[in-house]
Amino acid sequence: MKKIVVIGAAGTLGQAVSAELRARHEVIEVGVTRGQYRADITDPASVERLFGEIGKVDGVVTATGKVHFGPLPEMSIEQFWVGLRDKLMGQINVVLSAQQYVNDGGSFTLTSGIIGDEPIRLGASATTVNMALEGFVRGAAIELPRGIRINVVSPTVLTEAMDAYAPSFRGFEPVTAQRAALAYVRSVEGAQTGRVYRVGY
Amino acid sequence: MKKIVVIGAAGTLGQAVSAELRARHEVIEVGVTRGQYRADITDPASVERLFGEIGKVDGVVTATGKVHFGPLPEMSIEQFWVGLRDKLMGQINVVLSAQQYVNDGGSFTLTSGIIGDEPIRLGASATTVNMALEGFVRGAAIELPRGIRINVVSPTVLTEAMDAYAPSFRGFEPVTAQRAALAYVRSVEGAQTGRVYRVGY
Ligand SMILES: NC(=O)c1ccc[n+]([C@@H]2O[C@H](COP(=O)([O-])OP(=O)(O)OC[C@H]3O[C@@H](n4cnc5c(N)ncnc54)[C@H](OP(=O)(O)O)[C@@H]3O)[C@@H](O)[C@H]2O)c1
Ligand SMILES: NC(=O)c1ccc[n+]([C@@H]2O[C@H](COP(=O)([O-])OP(=O)(O)OC[C@H]3O[C@@H](n4cnc5c(N)ncnc54)[C@H](OP(=O)(O)O)[C@@H]3O)[C@@H](O)[C@H]2O)c1
Repeated sequence: MKKIVVIGAAGTLGQAVSAELRARHEVIEVGVTRGQYRADITDPASVERLFGEIGKVDGVVTATGKVHFGPLPEMSIEQFWVGLRDKLMGQINVVLSAQQYVNDGGSFTLTSGIIGDEPIRLGASATTVNMALEGFVRGAAIELPRGIRINVVSPTVLTEAMDAYAPSFRGFEPVTAQRAALAYVRSVEGAQTGRVYRVGY
Repeated sequence: MKKIVVIGAAGTLGQAVSAELRARHEVIEVGVTRGQYRADITDPASVERLFGEIGKVDGVVTATGKVHFGPLPEMSIEQFWVGLRDKLMGQINVVLSAQQYVNDGGSFTLTSGIIGDEPIRLGASATTVNMALEGFVRGAAIELPRGIRINVVSPTVLTEAMDAYAPSFRGFEPVTAQRAALAYVRSVEGAQTGRVYRVGY
């Protein structure tokens, strides 16, 4: 049994990830407005406080992240920054701040998404941020100390989100959050590092 | 003959790119402290001012970009931000602000680097930023209007930079800046969009 922190545990993806992990592990649920613990991962001080309270863990999963969707010809620089500050640096803040709280051989599992590989209209910021996360994992994997591993899960659009997202994902085959959650389990319980787990494509 | 702006024209890479393009085109050289025109592309207002002075062009090349190199376990969040603000958003600022000044069928050519594909020690921020740039180009290529194209050149380490960089690139085969410059010519004069031109690997 490992002690695993799931940040974004009450979200569409996070709920399924927490449920899969709970079968064999102690899961610590974190959200920004809900959950056992609260933290805003876009604020490094808040991440520090969170791990100061929780202490040592065997794994950290992040399933959060906002980016701005809009037509590139009209996208403002400020709108472009949203995804860099939130989805990208939110997750990177967690790795930089929490690494000292992760036990030897523990793991980080971050979240990107299919738009990194398959661009869609209005999605240039999302493609940028998802690829950046995959780059971060590639670079961090060879530098993390004490056998700490890091991977990223890139799911296609989720069945549970199709009500809202279908018009942007015509022809994409959605997967259930539960199926996407299996990739997080592979990352947490497997031996790989520096991997992108693509789900549903 | 096209009118091409080269930002970073006095740099190691930019000099070679300008020289290759000058054979057949009008090249407008931009730097932050040197060159015909001055602009700081990390400052959107400065980019606006630059293109307000230059007017319409057929292509924009960016060959600039700072990132922080250092061991990941000690990298501060502020150090990580350097590359996002400078190499990543500097080049993206240029695309977002200059697109209205680029003629129909014109092009953007950005610069990433081999560390995006081949991580090195101390390079997690560079891998993140280079992959982000490749994601941006992938996303922007399907959204830019009026046949405007966008590509990115990813050179391996340059022969001219080996004095400083050799210890970080043991076993890498360097290429001359002149050889790397050919990829910029292919992007500017070719018909492709959304491409990563890898040079020397
Ligand atoms: N939904 C999809 O189809 C899909 C597909 C591929 C990839 N993804 C990616 O998966 C991630 C999660 O998506 P989702 O649909 O599950 O989102 P969601 O349902 O909106 O859930 C987001 C979760 O993250 C938490 N959160 C948000 N901002 C936070 C912050 N600053 N600090 C800490 N926690 C924060 C929220 O906390 P509260 O519980 O307190 O609100 C919530 O639990 C995103 O990166 C998304 O791009 C989603
Ligand atoms: N050198 C290599 O081996 C190598 C290999 C692969 C990729 N790259 C990438 O290629 C790019 C250029 O590298 P380089 O070695 O040619 O750099 P460099 O010799 O330091 O030249 C940088 C150029 O960019 C300009 N510049 C810097 N900051 C600027 C800003 N904020 N606004 C506008 N212009 C700015 C400089 O202006 P001034 O002329 O006024 O100083 C200079 O002309 C970088 O992104 C680097 O990562 C380099």
